[in-house]
Amino acid sequence: MVAGMQRLRPVAVRLAQRSCWGARRYSVKAQPSWTAGAGAVTAIAAACAGIGAGFGLWIAQSTERGTAVAAAGASTEPPLGSELARIVVPETIPHVDYESEPKPAYYTDTTQPMHERMEALVLDLQDRLVEALETVERSKRFVRDRWEREDGKGYGISCVLQDGDVLEKAGVNVSVIEGTLTPGQLRSMRERNAQTAQRLGADQEYEFRVAGVSVVVHPRNPYAPTAHKNYRRFEVYRKGHVDAGPVMAWFGGGADLTPAYLFADDARHFHQTLKRACDAHDARYYPRFKAWCDRYFSNEHRGETRGVGGIFFDDLEDKAPEDLFRFVYDAGASFVRAYVPLVARRMATPYTQRERNWQLIRRGRYVEFNLVHDRGTKFGLMTPGARIESILMSLPLAARWEYMNRPEPGSPEEELQRAVRTTADWAA
Amino acid sequence: MVAGMQRLRPVAVRLAQRSCWGARRYSVKAQPSWTAGAGAVTAIAAACAGIGAGFGLWIAQSTERGTAVAAAGASTEPPLGSELARIVVPETIPHVDYESEPKPAYYTDTTQPMHERMEALVLDLQDRLVEALETVERSKRFVRDRWEREDGKGYGISCVLQDGDVLEKAGVNVSVIEGTLTPGQLRSMRERNAQTAQRLGADQEYEFRVAGVSVVVHPRNPYAPTAHKNYRRFEVYRKGHVDAGPVMAWFGGGADLTPAYLFADDARHFHQTLKRACDAHDARYYPRFKAWCDRYFSNEHRGETRGVGGIFFDDLEDKAPEDLFRFVYDAGASFVRAYVPLVARRMATPYTQRERNWQLIRRGRYVEFNLVHDRGTKFGLMTPGARIESILMSLPLAARWEYMNRPEPGSPEEELQRAVRTTADWAA
Repeated sequence: MVAGMQRLRPVAVRLAQRSCWGARRYSVKAQPSWTAGAGAVTAIAAACAGIGAGFGLWIAQSTERGTAVAAAGASTEPPLGSELARIVVPETIPHVDYESEPKPAYYTDTTQPMHERMEALVLDLQDRLVEALETVERSKRFVRDRWEREDGKGYGISCVLQDGDVLEKAGVNVSVIEGTLTPGQLRSMRERNAQTAQRLGADQEYEFRVAGVSVVVHPRNPYAPTAHKNYRRFEVYRKGHVDAGPVMAWFGGGADLTPAYLFADDARHFHQTLKRACDAHDARYYPRFKAWCDRYFSNEHRGETRGVGGIFFDDLEDKAPEDLFRFVYDAGASFVRAYVPLVARRMATPYTQRERNWQLIRRGRYVEFNLVHDRGTKFGLMTPGARIESILMSLPLAARWEYMNRPEPGSPEEELQRAVRTTADWAA
Repeated sequence: MVAGMQRLRPVAVRLAQRSCWGARRYSVKAQPSWTAGAGAVTAIAAACAGIGAGFGLWIAQSTERGTAVAAAGASTEPPLGSELARIVVPETIPHVDYESEPKPAYYTDTTQPMHERMEALVLDLQDRLVEALETVERSKRFVRDRWEREDGKGYGISCVLQDGDVLEKAGVNVSVIEGTLTPGQLRSMRERNAQTAQRLGADQEYEFRVAGVSVVVHPRNPYAPTAHKNYRRFEVYRKGHVDAGPVMAWFGGGADLTPAYLFADDARHFHQTLKRACDAHDARYYPRFKAWCDRYFSNEHRGETRGVGGIFFDDLEDKAPEDLFRFVYDAGASFVRAYVPLVARRMATPYTQRERNWQLIRRGRYVEFNLVHDRGTKFGLMTPGARIESILMSLPLAARWEYMNRPEPGSPEEELQRAVRTTADWAA
């Protein structure tokens, strides 16, 4: 595997250097401890074994920068709406028109192993999204951390922005990890479906390799929706037989939209953009992955979906890796178009304490989903040595629980509540 | 059982009438639906089967009053510390000196069935605590709801205060419920310990009867600690053989303290008061229940306890019911002395945004425990038809998650963090 990592690292370095913010801005740090690394790997495996999506690939980063993030703000609640006067709506947002941008080398370079092309893709998606978000958020730039595993078996790049004028809390994280599947991970993977159980022996040892990007954005303006995205490729090798290629490999991921106030146009734009990316590869994908998303991102205990949905899929290996990679490229790249214009459209809308309050209550629901239902988060939290800050980074900066809060009949708050208690065909 | 309920109701009515706020203030309402009731019963059974403590006995209440609670405020975050000028520290707090108060009739009236005496006790504890809390909270009174099950198999009285000057969110709830154990509940009860498995047949049908009080208080002042208390008696009867008396019956409950800032004096006072109540009945109780509390109220994923602990116990049937009832009386009654003076001592302390922010971060940890670890909450949330508002009423009004928040070395925030990462012998 070390050979694999040696092949693999230069790619990251190259991409890091050509990435929009430049390598000098990284802090290259070792893990505080091996266990943290081990926890991270387990957590990754959990997320990437399709045990969860919300938690995705948050893993260990250097703490100094992290502290800088906290120190950078978030210690006070700014006066309501005080940011509005400072907000500048950009004329254009980069990477929205992803289809007409020239395809990067990794897109077509079939001489590279798929895991290296996936690594290149997730780093590329991270660069594009951060660049796009920084055109709407002028008050702060993302704080970037680059970390490497002490054992050399992986690295990650985490981009965090907290307490900005536009983005109350946002994280865009990449990680590229390899390791040996623990018995627990192998068991949970074999339990997922009969097909996997056939291909992975209960008494065999396996190594895995995963590359993924995971995103959660919580804007400050109550009219601007929260969104999540997560794409990953997971490869499993028989231990000691890496050169024989993966025994199993699949793609997983998705994106979903969580507004506090319903704008049908926004929901339609989000879904139609994702549908277009899906349809370019398989007309069956969008309907299937849309329904999967509604099922997965559900606060069953409230009879509500987390938001207005999007797409969600896992264990995707129904086509040639080349075809699936191109689908994931489009699905991943389409997120900038699906989401960032919605933030730009709503971020300067005046609002009052009423809207802020409702937003905080809806964020409470987001917390409920991530802590109660999201299998990846739960698995991660139960993982000894897992990096909690990373796992819980998807939680909003602030949330609220009011006893018996009931939206007034006919109010916009009730309209949102109705929207999350039914599922609609937003792409129609 | 109907006969049982007929015997049982007058006690409640009598107590309700002599209770400090008077029966006229109740809204007597039927359940919105049977399923909600069923859910509530299941949730109760879960809590009372020792599956959880934090969630305890929150169950269905009338919605109008609930809406009134929300309408009564909580829709805006008041200016920081604006309440301080209005706060009046009372000269005395009623029911602090519970040992020298005359014992109520139910304490000694062995002619009454134990479940009716327990019902009388929890209603009495509710009255005393609400009365005590209303001497420190002058800006609002508790909103009270009384509800009854449509099928006549139970009722509850819920006292809620939200967005007060002193109490940001507080609930003091009683419920008295009976029903038939579902197969799932029976299974989980039999799995608890071998002894229970022996006495409850897997293929038998059982009815249960439970009376309990459940309390969570989140003060507004960051220097005033949050506290939780929950006491209950659970009885199991062979179906159709209620007159033969319970096959099994036990007490459960406890109380724990969750400060955002550590005052050793407060922690000592809380523990010493509980220890004194325990020691009056069995010198082994406090050490055993203190350790149990530290184990149970633990955010394992952070390596932290929820707060500075207290006592926790379940399945308590190691003595004659009469002796256990008197212990539970003292443990329950001692909560006013253990906790309310701490609120009075800290509620007028000036604070800044820094303390408020840290308090909100610690409340995020409280949310994490209740949603991730508390078995009763999780069981309740997974119960079809359970009343979510009641289950999640223990959550704070507001909470906060900052990425990589790290208390400054040597700061009071770090001192609290150290306190929850070790366990101390506060009663020494």
